[in-house]
Amino acid sequence: MSFKLTVLGCSSATPTLSRHSSAQVLKVHERLFLIDCGEGAQIQMRKFGIKFQRIDHIFISHLHGDHFLGLMGLLLTLHLLGRKNEIHLYANPDLEKIIDLQLEVSNTNFNFPLIFHALDSNITETIFEDENIIIKTIPLDHRIPTSGFIFTEKPRPQKIRKEIISKYDIPFEEITKIKMGADFSDKTGKLFKNSELTFDNPPTVSYAYCSDTGYTESYLHLIKNCNLLYNEATFMHNLVKNARDKYHCTSVDAANIALKAGAKQLLLGHYSARYDDLQPLLKEAKQIFENTLLA
Amino acid sequence: MSFKLTVLGCSSATPTLSRHSSAQVLKVHERLFLIDCGEGAQIQMRKFGIKFQRIDHIFISHLHGDHFLGLMGLLLTLHLLGRKNEIHLYANPDLEKIIDLQLEVSNTNFNFPLIFHALDSNITETIFEDENIIIKTIPLDHRIPTSGFIFTEKPRPQKIRKEIISKYDIPFEEITKIKMGADFSDKTGKLFKNSELTFDNPPTVSYAYCSDTGYTESYLHLIKNCNLLYNEATFMHNLVKNARDKYHCTSVDAANIALKAGAKQLLLGHYSARYDDLQPLLKEAKQIFENTLLA
Repeated sequence: MSFKLTVLGCSSATPTLSRHSSAQVLKVHERLFLIDCGEGAQIQMRKFGIKFQRIDHIFISHLHGDHFLGLMGLLLTLHLLGRKNEIHLYANPDLEKIIDLQLEVSNTNFNFPLIFHALDSNITETIFEDENIIIKTIPLDHRIPTSGFIFTEKPRPQKIRKEIISKYDIPFEEITKIKMGADFSDKTGKLFKNSELTFDNPPTVSYAYCSDTGYTESYLHLIKNCNLLYNEATFMHNLVKNARDKYHCTSVDAANIALKAGAKQLLLGHYSARYDDLQPLLKEAKQIFENTLLA
Repeated sequence: MSFKLTVLGCSSATPTLSRHSSAQVLKVHERLFLIDCGEGAQIQMRKFGIKFQRIDHIFISHLHGDHFLGLMGLLLTLHLLGRKNEIHLYANPDLEKIIDLQLEVSNTNFNFPLIFHALDSNITETIFEDENIIIKTIPLDHRIPTSGFIFTEKPRPQKIRKEIISKYDIPFEEITKIKMGADFSDKTGKLFKNSELTFDNPPTVSYAYCSDTGYTESYLHLIKNCNLLYNEATFMHNLVKNARDKYHCTSVDAANIALKAGAKQLLLGHYSARYDDLQPLLKEAKQIFENTLLA
């Protein structure tokens, strides 16, 4: 299975000419998950050629405008395009009030069911699960209730070695059992260990989205060993006081989180509009955690 | 005095890659007036090089998302940029509830006073007046309460002929009177008519914004002889039934309004996303009202 991440926006607070507000689309096994939905997200999706009619699940980390002000426009566009399929929205319960009020004053009812899942930002909980993936919340430390999200691929059945099936004349009904880890005895009673019959799938993949948050080690255990960590890095570390005051991270903070969590790769984002050139943030993070990229 | 209009967006309902949602900036004698504020308006203003810190007055025609979903983002950006000067917002009273709820859930208080002026869409009223301009509302016919706006330059004092001042030895205190329309008697008692002493200013200018609205002649008298009329033209006239059902105009409707109102020029806008090529709308309108432009 592949995870494909498209970052539609990675600016903090105010969009700039080169960076839109926070929004990402994660594609997992043909499903599209939208993570945050800052102003202009629907236009960014058009630019990136993302078929937003295929989004069924939307996750909003918190109710600062730069993380959700594009949502109402996107939902209205889906409505006007005639969408009928349900949309699941995972967010702080106050977002439902905001949406309901706007629908009321504009005398609008969505053509599709909007199923609201209220998040409790104080706990971690499983909010979505299918045959491929499990999604959990991450309590973050921000000025208002905020949840991060971790998307983890489920372990898949072992793959059976095709040449083995005919070689040992394995009946069809045994194949499924072997894939689930069973050993196999042939007609003569000879036992074959599962490890002889199968090979391992590639390890499962995980993606963690942590924005917005101040520096805290309280979520390290929830993102342990993740493949890719998107951690906000609003400021350079010389502005660490601003970061602490405003419950944001510096690029050094993000690198320390990645290091301590054992993440394989770090993606920085949510940059302050004051930075035209992001290379200094990258350089600062790389001194602590080499495998870092800029969103 | 010059009127300079910048159309930031002219798409109806859903933004497209080439057209944003409704928003315009009218510059009158160094004042910037923002008319509607669809999603992405703040980014469009950056693209057009408009200094949005200089906007003190914002007019929202109605509470369909494509006309106001960029407002909260703009106000938050102004807040984060440290704005202190008051902003006057003219809109349906429900907009104040929407803003207040969003401020409450995000635990935010604007740094600047936001002065809300509730509009009554059933009547025409003067909502702004200074030494240069007067702004009135236009009741429109839409699915929810909607007001258009007409911006009219005030008549200015006559200009005195400079060569006359020395020729007839006109005292300073008389000059102001002459500019206001008075005649003048010189030391010998000889009377000079005002028309001999002054020349007329260019005629006053007016701009009318009518969007969204179904076809109605009820607002013709309010936009009579305006210099420029922006009238919505969501559809071609072959979709006139759609237009009537949805309280929108066709390009033919807009041209008829311009013709009957005696407008000098017509600007079409608020196009349905179905039209990639807008030339057919223009052609259709021009058959009725020649001096038509596309926004």
